[in-house]
Amino acid sequence: MLGKHINLVREKQPLIHNITNYVTVNDVANIILAIGASPIMSDEPDDVGEITSICNGLNINIGTLNKRSIEAMFVAGKRAKELGHVVLLDPVGAGASSLRTDTALRILDEIHPDIIRGNISEIKTLALGQGSTKGVDADIADTVTDDNLDSAVAFAKAFSKKTGSVIAITGAIDLVSDANTCYVIRNGHPAMSKITGTGCQLSGLTCAFAAASIVTSPVDNNLDDASSFAMDSCDKSELTASVAAAVITMGLAGEIGYTHLAPYEGNSTYRNRIIDAIYHMDSETFEKGARYEIK
Amino acid sequence: MLGKHINLVREKQPLIHNITNYVTVNDVANIILAIGASPIMSDEPDDVGEITSICNGLNINIGTLNKRSIEAMFVAGKRAKELGHVVLLDPVGAGASSLRTDTALRILDEIHPDIIRGNISEIKTLALGQGSTKGVDADIADTVTDDNLDSAVAFAKAFSKKTGSVIAITGAIDLVSDANTCYVIRNGHPAMSKITGTGCQLSGLTCAFAAASIVTSPVDNNLDDASSFAMDSCDKSELTASVAAAVITMGLAGEIGYTHLAPYEGNSTYRNRIIDAIYHMDSETFEKGARYEIK
Amino acid sequence: MLGKHINLVREKQPLIHNITNYVTVNDVANIILAIGASPIMSDEPDDVGEITSICNGLNINIGTLNKRSIEAMFVAGKRAKELGHVVLLDPVGAGASSLRTDTALRILDEIHPDIIRGNISEIKTLALGQGSTKGVDADIADTVTDDNLDSAVAFAKAFSKKTGSVIAITGAIDLVSDANTCYVIRNGHPAMSKITGTGCQLSGLTCAFAAASIVTSPVDNNLDDASSFAMDSCDKSELTASVAAAVITMGLAGEIGYTHLAPYEGNSTYRNRIIDAIYHMDSETFEKGARYEIK
Repeated sequence: MLGKHINLVREKQPLIHNITNYVTVNDVANIILAIGASPIMSDEPDDVGEITSICNGLNINIGTLNKRSIEAMFVAGKRAKELGHVVLLDPVGAGASSLRTDTALRILDEIHPDIIRGNISEIKTLALGQGSTKGVDADIADTVTDDNLDSAVAFAKAFSKKTGSVIAITGAIDLVSDANTCYVIRNGHPAMSKITGTGCQLSGLTCAFAAASIVTSPVDNNLDDASSFAMDSCDKSELTASVAAAVITMGLAGEIGYTHLAPYEGNSTYRNRIIDAIYHMDSETFEKGARYEIK
Repeated sequence: MLGKHINLVREKQPLIHNITNYVTVNDVANIILAIGASPIMSDEPDDVGEITSICNGLNINIGTLNKRSIEAMFVAGKRAKELGHVVLLDPVGAGASSLRTDTALRILDEIHPDIIRGNISEIKTLALGQGSTKGVDADIADTVTDDNLDSAVAFAKAFSKKTGSVIAITGAIDLVSDANTCYVIRNGHPAMSKITGTGCQLSGLTCAFAAASIVTSPVDNNLDDASSFAMDSCDKSELTASVAAAVITMGLAGEIGYTHLAPYEGNSTYRNRIIDAIYHMDSETFEKGARYEIK
Repeated sequence: MLGKHINLVREKQPLIHNITNYVTVNDVANIILAIGASPIMSDEPDDVGEITSICNGLNINIGTLNKRSIEAMFVAGKRAKELGHVVLLDPVGAGASSLRTDTALRILDEIHPDIIRGNISEIKTLALGQGSTKGVDADIADTVTDDNLDSAVAFAKAFSKKTGSVIAITGAIDLVSDANTCYVIRNGHPAMSKITGTGCQLSGLTCAFAAASIVTSPVDNNLDDASSFAMDSCDKSELTASVAAAVITMGLAGEIGYTHLAPYEGNSTYRNRIIDAIYHMDSETFEKGARYEIK
């Protein structure tokens, strides 16, 4: 049933503005194209206001933040919210430095992103206002497992209630939660953690799914139409469902891509295979492969 | 006959300075290497003057422009022109924001690039001094088709006459035009539009072809030789032909690369296949596959 | 015997902070992951001090330096040295512009990197305080060959003695030298020079090998443990050996990757194949394939 969100992205073809790190930006652009949406990148404060205005969603990723791009995040974020666009925050490395933690927390306070996607360590940092991270990976002790699943679900719901954002915590088990409903997702492959930026890619993909779920008609670029779709009027449970659909799609692509690897192929080719699997993803493949429960 | 330009690039091995966006820069570098030229990237105003001096061509791409890189574009552009190097402008997103439109128009006015390569929407923006763009793709209503081909050719010739630049308008049908001659090119594959940066890659490739067409001897890096090749003394129709050869080469590589895709491969692998096809391109393959007419 | 360094990286999983160019950064991240280490990128002066503190090594690459990233290099470099972390300098394009040459020389003077890796042209520039470079490739006249091997080895040892750094000069023949011992390495494939950033990738890989050679226990992220491993207490000959092991690993991956190329595949796919070969590299494969002598 969640598979309909793939059709929505392919039909609506939302344009996604990404303020993202220069490490994984190319893969983010290609995965957005693979699912049928369009990416545009801009991080100059004097440019982002107009650029985000012609888009349908804004993906803010703090992976290689600097003073200029931070300023751009706030200019674009405020404008996107005024226009009712979907705003997603990927708090890369929150907990690893004060600048990252503080910037992510300020974005929570001042922009109120509709979606926050990170690993458990980053999300806990935001929830606690402090933390520690090994780079961009979740702290091992803080992995979501079957043993601590109930408390993790409760945490995700509580943080969603506190922020008003849909919370996506990704790892071996993925959680996508609003205040009431939490999708527990078991798609994916462990080797995905050996590719740089699968998280960043998922954030771009998620923003495309979410934007498509609230766009009322095929996108044109007439600014006067910007008000014809808006977060305000959107069904929150549909937004949560679209995020869950994106997370499942990424995990499933990781499973499918892995089956096409030759014995001598490794993480670099695997990166291509995952994006290729997104390119070929359809709702039928999705429905067959999706593995999740609702808590 | 245009196939000789491939041999020229492989023989002359020009060094191309790229001030380009961080989204597609890696592919731009690899495609320049694939054709036998060499790339160097620098966008710091205090660095670009010296860097461009040791190069043979300058590729300016405004895809993720910022205040620093804009300053660098003007420093490098003026120095490159003084030295008689080929300068190419790729006005990514012109029409999508005032900063992009104004920067591109200022580059036209102050640098007078030898070549401008963009989609129809971007080129129209420059021609009109206004416009609207969906990201970096041409507006659908403005696609060059067989129905509007004559008027598009007339537009390209007129804009070339106005600017003195060779104009390359790329899309399903590509136009490469100076004031008198327009190449109408039908190579390429629709799936190329699902890869980020095929346009940026083509701009880098075009700059290499154009630089090779005016370099008089195998490149060495003695600055005193910089005056031994120069735009001033070059045959303009040869420059236009070199741009047409680059556009055909890219389209043909798109066709060849597509034939090597497995059913489960998508846009990410396709990106590699196109650059790989450039790597193996030779004048014989070119002459067999080139599909163009001159208007 | 050098193969044990591969096991060390896979066991210790060092976290490497990279201040590097935006051209090849994605491949640098993926190659660090391929060998079993973890990458983090940050180039904002207000961020790098804390980020480098939680890492085990710092890889400074000046490929697309700008005023902000230069400032970050010094902040991070000084902090990393205080903490006894391995610091590597990749002086991309030293000799091609005064900013690059001066920045690299200032890093030598003020940071005293533990390792310097570049082509012969860049290293000579640093040694002479002047030079000329064709982009990031070694000047042809300055290639290390069997004919000039003895003088090149003497040069490498002398420069290591002068700087106190392990010197890695890479090209058709690679030299890895401290003041007393020089590894002469003959792994690799000529087509590697047709891929952008194999040198940058090697620098990231080398930093991971070197960090693993001095980390005393599996990495955790407790800052109080930062003093439990330190350059000061490390056996210098082990550091040199770890650098040699990294250079051999890269060359061998280039050989292995090349054997998996289809006739129509070129430099773009080859890039993936090399990183894939690193992903599958083990000490047995290494010992069988390593080709080096000690001078």
